[in-house]
Amino acid sequence: MNLMIIGRKAQDASAELAMLETSKKQEALLKIAGLLRDSKEEILAANEIDVAAAVKKGVKDSLVDRLRLDNKRIDAMAEGLEQITELKDPIGEVISQWKRPNGLRIKKVRVPFGVIGIIYESRPNVTVDAFGLCFMTGNAVILKGGSDAINSNVALGAILRKGLTACGITEDAVYVVEDTDRETTKQLMRLNQFVDVLIPRGSANLINTVLENSTIPVIETGTGNCHIYVDKKADLGKAIEIIINAKTQRMGVCNACESLVVHRDIAAKFLPKLAEALAPYNIDIRADEEARAVVGTFSEATEEDFGTEYLDRIISVKTVGSVEEAIAHINRYHTKHSDAIVTRDCKAADLFLRAVDSACVYVNASTRFTDGFEFGFGAEIGISTQKLHARGPMGLEELTSYKYQIVGNGQVRS
Amino acid sequence: MNLMIIGRKAQDASAELAMLETSKKQEALLKIAGLLRDSKEEILAANEIDVAAAVKKGVKDSLVDRLRLDNKRIDAMAEGLEQITELKDPIGEVISQWKRPNGLRIKKVRVPFGVIGIIYESRPNVTVDAFGLCFMTGNAVILKGGSDAINSNVALGAILRKGLTACGITEDAVYVVEDTDRETTKQLMRLNQFVDVLIPRGSANLINTVLENSTIPVIETGTGNCHIYVDKKADLGKAIEIIINAKTQRMGVCNACESLVVHRDIAAKFLPKLAEALAPYNIDIRADEEARAVVGTFSEATEEDFGTEYLDRIISVKTVGSVEEAIAHINRYHTKHSDAIVTRDCKAADLFLRAVDSACVYVNASTRFTDGFEFGFGAEIGISTQKLHARGPMGLEELTSYKYQIVGNGQVRS
Repeated sequence: MNLMIIGRKAQDASAELAMLETSKKQEALLKIAGLLRDSKEEILAANEIDVAAAVKKGVKDSLVDRLRLDNKRIDAMAEGLEQITELKDPIGEVISQWKRPNGLRIKKVRVPFGVIGIIYESRPNVTVDAFGLCFMTGNAVILKGGSDAINSNVALGAILRKGLTACGITEDAVYVVEDTDRETTKQLMRLNQFVDVLIPRGSANLINTVLENSTIPVIETGTGNCHIYVDKKADLGKAIEIIINAKTQRMGVCNACESLVVHRDIAAKFLPKLAEALAPYNIDIRADEEARAVVGTFSEATEEDFGTEYLDRIISVKTVGSVEEAIAHINRYHTKHSDAIVTRDCKAADLFLRAVDSACVYVNASTRFTDGFEFGFGAEIGISTQKLHARGPMGLEELTSYKYQIVGNGQVRS
Repeated sequence: MNLMIIGRKAQDASAELAMLETSKKQEALLKIAGLLRDSKEEILAANEIDVAAAVKKGVKDSLVDRLRLDNKRIDAMAEGLEQITELKDPIGEVISQWKRPNGLRIKKVRVPFGVIGIIYESRPNVTVDAFGLCFMTGNAVILKGGSDAINSNVALGAILRKGLTACGITEDAVYVVEDTDRETTKQLMRLNQFVDVLIPRGSANLINTVLENSTIPVIETGTGNCHIYVDKKADLGKAIEIIINAKTQRMGVCNACESLVVHRDIAAKFLPKLAEALAPYNIDIRADEEARAVVGTFSEATEEDFGTEYLDRIISVKTVGSVEEAIAHINRYHTKHSDAIVTRDCKAADLFLRAVDSACVYVNASTRFTDGFEFGFGAEIGISTQKLHARGPMGLEELTSYKYQIVGNGQVRS
């Protein structure tokens, strides 16, 4: 279907969604969860086509795994929708209100964005997850997944629309774009007339393409070159535990630690412990000259290393002489995602919290906590790495805008 | 100077600005206000070069007037800075805080964006106004004005930097870009590494160019196709007063009324009154067939009229049979800026407030109130017409982002 028509329909649907009662939205999500559980056979059949095509194309095993659905994964999607129904509906919340001297009463009220576009890659579960979050916040959503997952996505989209129709809600609340060519994606990125916000989810490459080409406001998510600074007053045992967790618990995620900054005064004591602790994980430790003088087995870090998000079994180490120097190093090389200090010094902790320019700044905790669920939001559409609108983990509230409602009795401006 | 160097310096400056005490920012703004008053001669000399060049080029009188500075206008700029020092500094505000079951304490704290880029046209006062708002919110600012005003802007920029230096603050908090060619503007729009947000201020053409080319997050401001709906239960006298105010008080502004929607049941009574009331203002009233059947002197409205922001002595009129039809018409043709209903019917008013998808929705008041000062913000950097981040009038708070500060005692993720 023509994207202009899809856009217009989504916009019309968004007007209906914005007025839906919370209970109606909950009813629809529960209905769809049930339908997903009842439609496993048809979903798996569609998914099998995608998986077979990927295998035939020689796609990497890890990517085929992302693509593959099974009963458990379908149940998880259904559960995800059910969990969303338990969250507080942010729509309609009065954020603030006041009265002007001329008698005008102004209310700032939380409203949906309207139409959200999601551009994503091979995980078909995003189709259901993203729909659920957008729908609960009263937004219509246009979903543009990767060509690898197109059969799975179309099958899932049909179930979503069927569930909406069964509840008397317009099926245009969700649309899975069937054309997966680049030209369609480009058109979607320029559909300003109908789409209010675009959220790309996937690789750095995908996100950069969207930033480069979109004329619609984008929420950038993704890249995390996260640092942990081990201060001279750090509890070194805790530092090791935190680093092991942040580096090794999951390697390929944006809140994993990629760079260490170590205070000179504890380097001789700390770095050999670090080498020993990371040894079982087979991590390549790329260090500056000063750190290599302490542990000869560290490999050499280049300038480029300090700015790299490895998402792999590599970590960089930089030695510094003060918390101020650590902050300057981090602010120069990080991606403003998540950075931590390990210290028992309140003054150093406070300075670090204030001066490090990241979405999430930690004292004595793992950067891995940057996550909507870990923050208690009960949901997550992504982790924003820009400063406009939302920063860090994004839950339901971050999928909303606001409007001003102003009530007068004939006021005119003089 | 190379924009990469300018960007880097601005980013370094922003780290310093983010940590400044409120009193220090106030001191600097007052110092600069004084310097502006003391430097009238040099500012006016620079401005005279711009004005003479514009006159020589045959630029329209109204544009030359925008460009021209005089003692009064310089005083107004200085007063603007002084007024900003009286506003509440939003930086450092704890927006919310909570504790997680694992003991992590999370604080959401208001912080500056970092570096803001402003791209604007011929009014040199924007140089000072925009700097004042950005500086008070702890942001460094890169100002790219129009070539018409370059000498004025450079002179003003030099005074801003001189004032900062006199207060011991880095002069890189503000930079007036001296190259006014398109290539430089394009580079600025792609300086993602250093610039956090871009705010274009000026014509629809300028704003579209920025939306089209920027890879940096943009706040769109400007276009207002504002509607007033006169309901069947309207106080017709009030409706006339509100329409005259919204249409004629200032024609060329984004919150002026461009389109009327009139309920059929009161059309015969209301439209002749409207024709009579607008007659002294020489307004071309472009109406649909039904309205023209009531007042034969109305001219004909085309489909295009309903979607046009005239900024001129023209207004369109559409007849409808219900508040629902009025809402549907408005949601189709408006620019989501400001729309009003005139009615004594609470139910119609409530539906209109909820269903019209605009930044500002009014009951019984003029759309001209969409303004940072009229809202009581004490300042305005522009009126956002997008839904991401800020909507409607933007004051100091809308020039900020937030960060999460998380304090633990060794927590790791399991």
